[in-house]
Amino acid sequence: MAELFRTTRRVEFVDTDMAQIVHFSNFFRFMESAEIDFLNGLGLSVSMQTEGGKWIGFPRVSASCDYFKPARFLDVVEITVRVETLGAKSITYQFEFFKAGELLARGQITAVCCRTLPDNRLESMEIPPNIRQKLQGTMSQ
Amino acid sequence: MAELFRTTRRVEFVDTDMAQIVHFSNFFRFMESAEIDFLNGLGLSVSMQTEGGKWIGFPRVSASCDYFKPARFLDVVEITVRVETLGAKSITYQFEFFKAGELLARGQITAVCCRTLPDNRLESMEIPPNIRQKLQGTMSQ
Amino acid sequence: MAELFRTTRRVEFVDTDMAQIVHFSNFFRFMESAEIDFLNGLGLSVSMQTEGGKWIGFPRVSASCDYFKPARFLDVVEITVRVETLGAKSITYQFEFFKAGELLARGQITAVCCRTLPDNRLESMEIPPNIRQKLQGTMSQ
Amino acid sequence: MAELFRTTRRVEFVDTDMAQIVHFSNFFRFMESAEIDFLNGLGLSVSMQTEGGKWIGFPRVSASCDYFKPARFLDVVEITVRVETLGAKSITYQFEFFKAGELLARGQITAVCCRTLPDNRLESMEIPPNIRQKLQGTMSQ
Repeated sequence: MAELFRTTRRVEFVDTDMAQIVHFSNFFRFMESAEIDFLNGLGLSVSMQTEGGKWIGFPRVSASCDYFKPARFLDVVEITVRVETLGAKSITYQFEFFKAGELLARGQITAVCCRTLPDNRLESMEIPPNIRQKLQGTMSQ
Repeated sequence: MAELFRTTRRVEFVDTDMAQIVHFSNFFRFMESAEIDFLNGLGLSVSMQTEGGKWIGFPRVSASCDYFKPARFLDVVEITVRVETLGAKSITYQFEFFKAGELLARGQITAVCCRTLPDNRLESMEIPPNIRQKLQGTMSQ
Repeated sequence: MAELFRTTRRVEFVDTDMAQIVHFSNFFRFMESAEIDFLNGLGLSVSMQTEGGKWIGFPRVSASCDYFKPARFLDVVEITVRVETLGAKSITYQFEFFKAGELLARGQITAVCCRTLPDNRLESMEIPPNIRQKLQGTMSQ
Repeated sequence: MAELFRTTRRVEFVDTDMAQIVHFSNFFRFMESAEIDFLNGLGLSVSMQTEGGKWIGFPRVSASCDYFKPARFLDVVEITVRVETLGAKSITYQFEFFKAGELLARGQITAVCCRTLPDNRLESMEIPPNIRQKLQGTMSQ
């Protein structure tokens, strides 16, 4: 069984609010940043050009986070990423945030594979086989 | 039966991302902004000084959002706010985002009433009676 | 002589940082938001489709801000906007931020009129006459 | 002559806007992040507790940026940091942003050394000698 994907993120001054902790909305930004690290590690991205030159992206259909302990300025937060479920068109990721081994927060993002139409609207599509295969490879871990 | 609380928010250029829609994390910022409008309407805030001079705040213990349709630059989004559940120490809000009557997103935030200790740590406490009474007043609607 | 354009902006919780004041970078976001209010008042925008269906935008070539007094959570800041100089291809705006009549900050943004090329690169172009005329109309004030 | 301080920053999805480039305000956030890297390398921070237990910080009195080329999603931008001038109470930093050796932007931040008073107001003070000495050490380079 392989290792869970791990990445880190340092808390910047602008990430904090007047309660002197990371603003809760920034955990969603950290999740996306960790998702990109995870996808890059597989040779993928959240915004990719297909062989046909079309752009596909992964707009979010749901996102959630439970907060257990605050993160503070200069904390180096460890974030684990795993694919929780892989649908025909959607991916659900789970993220856990740790500081010194202590769980700070746990979040989820569900994203749907979409192509951009000429008029800028988004249309859902099945996850292309080469992307699916790489994501599935991480789930047997 | 009284009206549900409603407020509006214009989408700024910086709220968009390269997919030309509002970044999903910004819906959580819009929720907080609508929560403040809602609380201000009751003579309350998310960060208040008690009679004793202590600061109380409402750090979030969970937040979630389901996204149905994208919001775009210059959209004026209507946001409804209601108190879904009111615990001894916590409040759960529900937010709905509309554009031209169409539901764009639905979100929830659960916040816990906390006082700031001298060493900057947060300690949960029961919601003070005067605050509870005002919040309950909106639930019978 | 006409009145200077004025708009307001409430400071949100997320705009603050652990120093309990508005983060300096957010003044640039407030400037852009005020610029959009100003342009909208003239029937213009920062991202517009020309008669030919091409998109033109106003990417920034320089931005600066001097900070005199901090802005804090829930402050309703008054922002004045004026066109300081109007070049063949560029606009320089000046913004002033006030709270209760006291000057908090003064900033400038210089933006260049650009069209988006098919490969996504930006190419500068002369400000279209109908836009120029409206902007000039505010300068005689 | 020693090397100029260099750090890097990857452009995140949320850093982009609908023009598909990094929003101009985010360069100021990147400057602050680079400043923190620079200060951390000297054993310093932007928010420090003195021997006496008082908090000192470095609120900004001015910030500016000139933009030459856009930065895009996933670009790994190299940022150089140097102390341009060191006053009795203030520091002016210069930052340059590069991608593949090409200059994208050049910015400056002037920050003033301040202590936080009991009522939360900020009061300027002379830069403590141990901090001054470390900053001066980087200027002889």
